[in-house]
Amino acid sequence: MAVVVTKFDRVKPSLVAQFAALGVATVHEAQGRIGLLAAHMRPIFRPAHVVGTAVTCEVAPGDNWMIHVAVEQCQAGDILVVTPTSPCQDGYFGDLLAESLQAQGVRALIIDAGVRDIAALTQMGFPVWSKAVYAQGTVKETLGNVNLPIVCAGALIHPGDLIVADDDGVVVVSRTQVDTVLQMANAREAGEAEKRARFAAGELGLDVYNMRERLAAKGLKYVESLEDASSCKP
Amino acid sequence: MAVVVTKFDRVKPSLVAQFAALGVATVHEAQGRIGLLAAHMRPIFRPAHVVGTAVTCEVAPGDNWMIHVAVEQCQAGDILVVTPTSPCQDGYFGDLLAESLQAQGVRALIIDAGVRDIAALTQMGFPVWSKAVYAQGTVKETLGNVNLPIVCAGALIHPGDLIVADDDGVVVVSRTQVDTVLQMANAREAGEAEKRARFAAGELGLDVYNMRERLAAKGLKYVESLEDASSCKP
Amino acid sequence: MAVVVTKFDRVKPSLVAQFAALGVATVHEAQGRIGLLAAHMRPIFRPAHVVGTAVTCEVAPGDNWMIHVAVEQCQAGDILVVTPTSPCQDGYFGDLLAESLQAQGVRALIIDAGVRDIAALTQMGFPVWSKAVYAQGTVKETLGNVNLPIVCAGALIHPGDLIVADDDGVVVVSRTQVDTVLQMANAREAGEAEKRARFAAGELGLDVYNMRERLAAKGLKYVESLEDASSCKP
Amino acid sequence: MAVVVTKFDRVKPSLVAQFAALGVATVHEAQGRIGLLAAHMRPIFRPAHVVGTAVTCEVAPGDNWMIHVAVEQCQAGDILVVTPTSPCQDGYFGDLLAESLQAQGVRALIIDAGVRDIAALTQMGFPVWSKAVYAQGTVKETLGNVNLPIVCAGALIHPGDLIVADDDGVVVVSRTQVDTVLQMANAREAGEAEKRARFAAGELGLDVYNMRERLAAKGLKYVESLEDASSCKP
Amino acid sequence: MAVVVTKFDRVKPSLVAQFAALGVATVHEAQGRIGLLAAHMRPIFRPAHVVGTAVTCEVAPGDNWMIHVAVEQCQAGDILVVTPTSPCQDGYFGDLLAESLQAQGVRALIIDAGVRDIAALTQMGFPVWSKAVYAQGTVKETLGNVNLPIVCAGALIHPGDLIVADDDGVVVVSRTQVDTVLQMANAREAGEAEKRARFAAGELGLDVYNMRERLAAKGLKYVESLEDASSCKP
Amino acid sequence: MAVVVTKFDRVKPSLVAQFAALGVATVHEAQGRIGLLAAHMRPIFRPAHVVGTAVTCEVAPGDNWMIHVAVEQCQAGDILVVTPTSPCQDGYFGDLLAESLQAQGVRALIIDAGVRDIAALTQMGFPVWSKAVYAQGTVKETLGNVNLPIVCAGALIHPGDLIVADDDGVVVVSRTQVDTVLQMANAREAGEAEKRARFAAGELGLDVYNMRERLAAKGLKYVESLEDASSCKP
Repeated sequence: MAVVVTKFDRVKPSLVAQFAALGVATVHEAQGRIGLLAAHMRPIFRPAHVVGTAVTCEVAPGDNWMIHVAVEQCQAGDILVVTPTSPCQDGYFGDLLAESLQAQGVRALIIDAGVRDIAALTQMGFPVWSKAVYAQGTVKETLGNVNLPIVCAGALIHPGDLIVADDDGVVVVSRTQVDTVLQMANAREAGEAEKRARFAAGELGLDVYNMRERLAAKGLKYVESLEDASSCKP
Repeated sequence: MAVVVTKFDRVKPSLVAQFAALGVATVHEAQGRIGLLAAHMRPIFRPAHVVGTAVTCEVAPGDNWMIHVAVEQCQAGDILVVTPTSPCQDGYFGDLLAESLQAQGVRALIIDAGVRDIAALTQMGFPVWSKAVYAQGTVKETLGNVNLPIVCAGALIHPGDLIVADDDGVVVVSRTQVDTVLQMANAREAGEAEKRARFAAGELGLDVYNMRERLAAKGLKYVESLEDASSCKP
Repeated sequence: MAVVVTKFDRVKPSLVAQFAALGVATVHEAQGRIGLLAAHMRPIFRPAHVVGTAVTCEVAPGDNWMIHVAVEQCQAGDILVVTPTSPCQDGYFGDLLAESLQAQGVRALIIDAGVRDIAALTQMGFPVWSKAVYAQGTVKETLGNVNLPIVCAGALIHPGDLIVADDDGVVVVSRTQVDTVLQMANAREAGEAEKRARFAAGELGLDVYNMRERLAAKGLKYVESLEDASSCKP
Repeated sequence: MAVVVTKFDRVKPSLVAQFAALGVATVHEAQGRIGLLAAHMRPIFRPAHVVGTAVTCEVAPGDNWMIHVAVEQCQAGDILVVTPTSPCQDGYFGDLLAESLQAQGVRALIIDAGVRDIAALTQMGFPVWSKAVYAQGTVKETLGNVNLPIVCAGALIHPGDLIVADDDGVVVVSRTQVDTVLQMANAREAGEAEKRARFAAGELGLDVYNMRERLAAKGLKYVESLEDASSCKP
Repeated sequence: MAVVVTKFDRVKPSLVAQFAALGVATVHEAQGRIGLLAAHMRPIFRPAHVVGTAVTCEVAPGDNWMIHVAVEQCQAGDILVVTPTSPCQDGYFGDLLAESLQAQGVRALIIDAGVRDIAALTQMGFPVWSKAVYAQGTVKETLGNVNLPIVCAGALIHPGDLIVADDDGVVVVSRTQVDTVLQMANAREAGEAEKRARFAAGELGLDVYNMRERLAAKGLKYVESLEDASSCKP
Repeated sequence: MAVVVTKFDRVKPSLVAQFAALGVATVHEAQGRIGLLAAHMRPIFRPAHVVGTAVTCEVAPGDNWMIHVAVEQCQAGDILVVTPTSPCQDGYFGDLLAESLQAQGVRALIIDAGVRDIAALTQMGFPVWSKAVYAQGTVKETLGNVNLPIVCAGALIHPGDLIVADDDGVVVVSRTQVDTVLQMANAREAGEAEKRARFAAGELGLDVYNMRERLAAKGLKYVESLEDASSCKP
């Protein structure tokens, strides 16, 4: 047995839109360094940058049936997030499903498995972050849940959560934290602009971040040669 | 001891040419979801799409000697398929060998190992699908067979078989099945065009493929909230 | 405790410049097939090709503090080489640090770990070779040595050594061997130009390298069919 | 900032005890094939079989400080579950910490990272399931949360949940589902005993599970030779 | 559609029996260093050593249905060899299926996927070589072929071929080569006994195999110090 | 060309002997958390614990010739350390070579590649730490250096260095640091005995190591419920 949850709260489109200029690294830092999907989640083309709200979908290994069920639950502005119930790299998704998602206004696919038809997906400009590119076909035999909370590539994702994906990977922001994270991300961006200027002018991080004293306190020694280094090692 | 088989039947060029517009995923599906090489076989540049007939070559780990032997067995329209006798990621192949293959009219290299000089190969437009990019040089000491059937990246390949490779990976079609597979691939393509139009118009896979009844029969339930979902779980 | 070595000999800029047209594979061959970093070290954009002198930096897992210390030790023409003290794929380095390195005239980053902000790094044209792309943030708590000899991605690197990096990966040349390696690399390049012409004209490696006799002596047999091959197998 | 949650509901000891004879595979099946930790979680010695209640602990990469904090939150009958905030295989845990956990009555460690001193741990009979065995030492600099819900090796675990671990790996049962799962697991065990007897007597699964008709309906053909097989392939 | 081939020639039991004392490495060498399955195929307990005739079985990812079909095709003395049609580590096989295979006189399972219930399998003494240990359950929905030639862990295996498996891994010997390989393996064993005695008496491989002259001819130099070594390097 | 260095200083046997009771983790910590070989270096049987002096040997991929050369350079009390010049998992070493090494008084093999005949090696009690177990045979065609400094599994090893290997893995101690490391390792062992007693008596690491104040200063909060935790998160 499996269930499809048809109603859930999404992060509001106006709020989602405010993340459009924010990158994955910034958002990840802004929410306290949590929410990143694993490093194996890579975009099929670059550059790519999307924000949207999660529709979640579990699939059996080698079986993409539930993706068709999930498409119907998607709205414009959503990002479809798919996780297999055990590790699999088969090609669950190709150009026909991308056509269907694009027609519904879905902005991207995040899948901890494989995709195929990536030349066509690239031409269509439909972004995908996946674990693998693999043409292996799938069957349609086994049910899975749609819009239950899932673990995808190591991150817990609820339907309606905010997804940000770019060349660095994918991060999820809990629907309940989006306001706070937005403020902190914007603050961080502001601070970075000023630091960028200082770095460009040749200032060092040691001074920009005022690190010298703490480094010395921890025991960092500067020596003029490798031989001096050896003599002061424990 | 090792042998080089100098004569074998190839898929006819006129037949090969009819696969020129067919992708790996389509061909793989058309022949019953078999014949794919492993997902680690990736093109060194994208987009890339080639079809051709296999010349097969076994090499010892860290030893590219037999590639030189295999080049002589290649004809215009061939694709050289190389597999190491034990796993290896060394750079068996670079721009000089590519120059040589191009001069013989060979269309691509498929190698379950490493390649190098990929900047030059990219400039030359010589496509390679490989397991790794690695500059590590190789020796010329140990024999291997040329044009015996081989297992390359998990797929059984006979000399003369049809190879199709694109951004999704690599698939082999047995020489004896090429006619049948071509028909089925073309039929599949035709069907996809119609489906693509329906998806683009907003129809759902659930309806295009008539899935709703079978999903319900398997036990799929639609609920309006996560709480309802919990109550109906086993 | 940890040390920063502030003075060491670098390969001279005039000598470094002579490597500007040499690729990783050529240099690796010229010095006797040593000095390659592991195949997992990949550039964040392609094509990319840099030469420079190594500044070496050890970092704790998940801790990028020492990169800030290392920046101060860099000069124009250097390449920063970073290795974690145990395997890690976190995003140690992003656009702010790249801004800082660029301002110091540093030509590239080589890191056996992760990087982030790769869209920005690509736009800036700041090349990075890394083990992973991953947005995961790092802390600043633990010391490490700067400009001691390190093992990075399996290769031993001393500060001041020559680094060559291109689409194929990364190679180190010991400062004490640079003159010799340059001569041999140039000689190799010269030889390759002539061979390239012969290959382009359709000559075979079997003849260019005069391999036929030795292949026969080792026992290579040419047969006309697979059946003949079977009969002559041991 | 980080938090330690000091109070939470645990599965009752009397209920935990009823899982003592149940294996991971049985429990996993009984709850609908969910809750398994990834296959890389392996026991340091075999056979090993434990059941207990989860205390959860996040640690920074290369930093085992929070394990000391978590020990204080453990009670007799608990199992400590540790996950790094980014992938790490360092040796977070050794014989001294095992001594401490044993003294508190803790039954096992589950850690998606490395452990060390496994010869001593084996002699002590303290079971550990880990991703790696690695002697690499860790620092004590960075905070993490204790007894918040965590994702460990791909599975969502709340403090107080039931953990079952044996030679096959590790499974978590949500505290709120334990009663139901126990019933289904016991039912499954009962059914298996009967089936085991039938298999031992030589009956086939085809008959025990009554599969023949459905196989035929799906299109399974029995042929007497490989040649016959080829002729009936699509 | 899928087929089950019910009749094929097996290596004769009397011939199989003569391999009982031969290890995987010996057999692999005796047949010219071919036929090994990939290094990831590991026994679930050690020591283990079996010989038998292959029954081959393809399974869909996450679907063990065809194993039940294959069991019926097994005879006493067989070894069941299972390969998924795309990479999968799910637990396709547990103690009930082992009970069934043991009742049929099957000697072992070779599976390029996962197994479970390994504590029970170990107690039963039923040997398994697999890619993973993982409790993940499987479904019974998709057909696959039984007793067609398969590629399992990189090796081509025909039904009826000889399988030898021990602590080192698994090797297949083609049914048509078994006589020849047996002779060569026995000859090799005989030769090894004599060499073992010489090694035990302190003789060196350099002398036993008469290597000194060829090493010198290739250019090996003996020097008394590291400094001497540097001076004679190219 | 390649060289064999025949004379070098070894750590004195009397000094080696004093490490006999020290484990890898202790030695690694005592020398400042350096010198560990990568986590993939695993013993073929457990428990195993050896100490000895390194003889170093480079081998080409798939080529074990130089191991025979290296055996002659070994003395009683040595440990043979072998590294391939590019990654390889072939079975470079089996029972005959083990017989030879045992006859020379060599205590173990450390190899960043594969071994075979592990059932026999286990029976002989000859310990091996390797990257893989794989029966794949090797050739004898290509030279490599013996007793030059090598990088093995990520660690720099000089001939004559001290090697300690146990169930946790392998660590190298530079010959020039052995005295210092021994003192620190013994001091560490002494301190651990006292701590072990305190842990066994139920004391917590928080108190034994006096951590509470620093944890509070860093911002660790104790709360009574998950709800309280949420409210105090940033």
